[in-house]
Amino acid sequence: MYDLIIIGGGPAGLTAGMYAARSKLNVVMLEKMMPGGNVSITAEVENYPGTMTLSGPDLVINMENQARSFGLEIKSEEVISIDVGAGIDGHTVKSDSGEYKTKAVLIASGSSPRRIGCPGEDEHIGRGVSYCATCDGAFFRDKHVAVIGGGDSAVEEGLYLTKFASRVTIIHRRDKLRATKIIQEKAMKNPKIDFIWDSVVESIEGTPVVNNIKLKNVKTGAISDFAVNGVFVFVGYMPGTTFVPSMVEKDEGGYIITDKEMRTSVPGIFAAGDITNKKQRQIVTACGDAATAVKSVEHYLEWYFE
Amino acid sequence: MYDLIIIGGGPAGLTAGMYAARSKLNVVMLEKMMPGGNVSITAEVENYPGTMTLSGPDLVINMENQARSFGLEIKSEEVISIDVGAGIDGHTVKSDSGEYKTKAVLIASGSSPRRIGCPGEDEHIGRGVSYCATCDGAFFRDKHVAVIGGGDSAVEEGLYLTKFASRVTIIHRRDKLRATKIIQEKAMKNPKIDFIWDSVVESIEGTPVVNNIKLKNVKTGAISDFAVNGVFVFVGYMPGTTFVPSMVEKDEGGYIITDKEMRTSVPGIFAAGDITNKKQRQIVTACGDAATAVKSVEHYLEWYFE
Repeated sequence: MYDLIIIGGGPAGLTAGMYAARSKLNVVMLEKMMPGGNVSITAEVENYPGTMTLSGPDLVINMENQARSFGLEIKSEEVISIDVGAGIDGHTVKSDSGEYKTKAVLIASGSSPRRIGCPGEDEHIGRGVSYCATCDGAFFRDKHVAVIGGGDSAVEEGLYLTKFASRVTIIHRRDKLRATKIIQEKAMKNPKIDFIWDSVVESIEGTPVVNNIKLKNVKTGAISDFAVNGVFVFVGYMPGTTFVPSMVEKDEGGYIITDKEMRTSVPGIFAAGDITNKKQRQIVTACGDAATAVKSVEHYLEWYFE
Repeated sequence: MYDLIIIGGGPAGLTAGMYAARSKLNVVMLEKMMPGGNVSITAEVENYPGTMTLSGPDLVINMENQARSFGLEIKSEEVISIDVGAGIDGHTVKSDSGEYKTKAVLIASGSSPRRIGCPGEDEHIGRGVSYCATCDGAFFRDKHVAVIGGGDSAVEEGLYLTKFASRVTIIHRRDKLRATKIIQEKAMKNPKIDFIWDSVVESIEGTPVVNNIKLKNVKTGAISDFAVNGVFVFVGYMPGTTFVPSMVEKDEGGYIITDKEMRTSVPGIFAAGDITNKKQRQIVTACGDAATAVKSVEHYLEWYFE
């Protein structure tokens, strides 16, 4: 039986893995893709404390190497379910290629980009619709792209896209941005960026690649056509909780509810990072939560199992 | 009037300063010494996620430069008191050289390990004397270490050190432990742990690293030599709260009580880092809490003042 199974290999999972391995817990990480999470597809990270000049991929590769150097084992498996056991018997984690007994589980499976949910969106993914500027920005050299959203990530990614696109139109359903002031100001000053306010995307069109979107003004109800070559969607994230037992309490957004010590409503199940309910979703908060979670796991192991 | 005054310049304060300055808050940091906090005196930091090979001083210098690059102003002043104001009027922070009105205050003045206060202690910090098993335990693989203290943290940290050390001797000035029974029993059963009762450390010796301590039996007065490779001191922490108003709730140890969003019991006063009541006191948890605190400060500013 494992002491701890960590589900997910983003910054939270890697930090937890490092702390748990360093504390000599019998621990394994299950990650369905490459470790790194959403940071792997973030070009520039300037606000992770202590490392100003690292790219996202470099930062998480450092974290992975650091965790492995303390002996963390990482398995490339997708978790299907967690069967909640009774106290001393531990829980059972089922993956696409195995089944493991463990005393404790740390859910750090993060969140993935939310979709608009309009006609034409799904069928144009990879044909003009993207959720990752770092990944796909370079395909839109000298093109006109729309950015959907008004938060930090929409505006930051919009700024990033000006490296490639000739014009970036930020389309937001409200009449002002939610993004941090400094980022807003940068966008307002950028000659390649313009804005369409109070508007939502009704449909995405073009055969085979995007050449038009239909916009609806939420104040007037008016529908208009807007010619673009690409649509970058940054309207939030969905927590990756399909495998999480219903006994684990979640908030209305589907995020796992934890206390300050990162305990969930189920003893022996802990959560950290973007999958938890909190206001500040940053690399450093995910890492901090994960270190806290491992301390809680250690207390739990001592109290129940020793 | 400032938007935010940050009191203390350790990892929590510097991270908060970076986030606040990057968000264009009108912010100043007041730090009585050099920025960096306890990390400035930590030789090696191997468990800060993403930067495995940085010394403590280098890590906090990076954080300071990063915060300054976004425009953070740092004043070398010691805070004497915080006068709690009424909502919209803000609070008043009094230092040894000025008086400032501010909408919000973030207390990040940390805590410092209580020292033994014996000859040889200060000069061996980082050379065998440590106040943090999680931080430094791994450096004492297969060594013999002394643990000074008899409370929960001394015994828990002693147990933790058995993962690395070949022998852990707990030295306590009384003839029994103060620690919780269950933890005591665990320590008594552990074959790597032994005890020296009724004894205090008279001096710590070794050039350049610790190889001996002089013990004094408090009942007989007898002095003896005891050969060890390291001395872990757990005789308590002192949170730096002398200037904190009594309205701000603290726990029995004097730590400031916060919720998950790092709010204290007084509106407009927030806290982050080692000064808060929590289980895991690590650089990355201090940084994570600070990023969370700034988000809360921004919400507070919007709510009360905009």
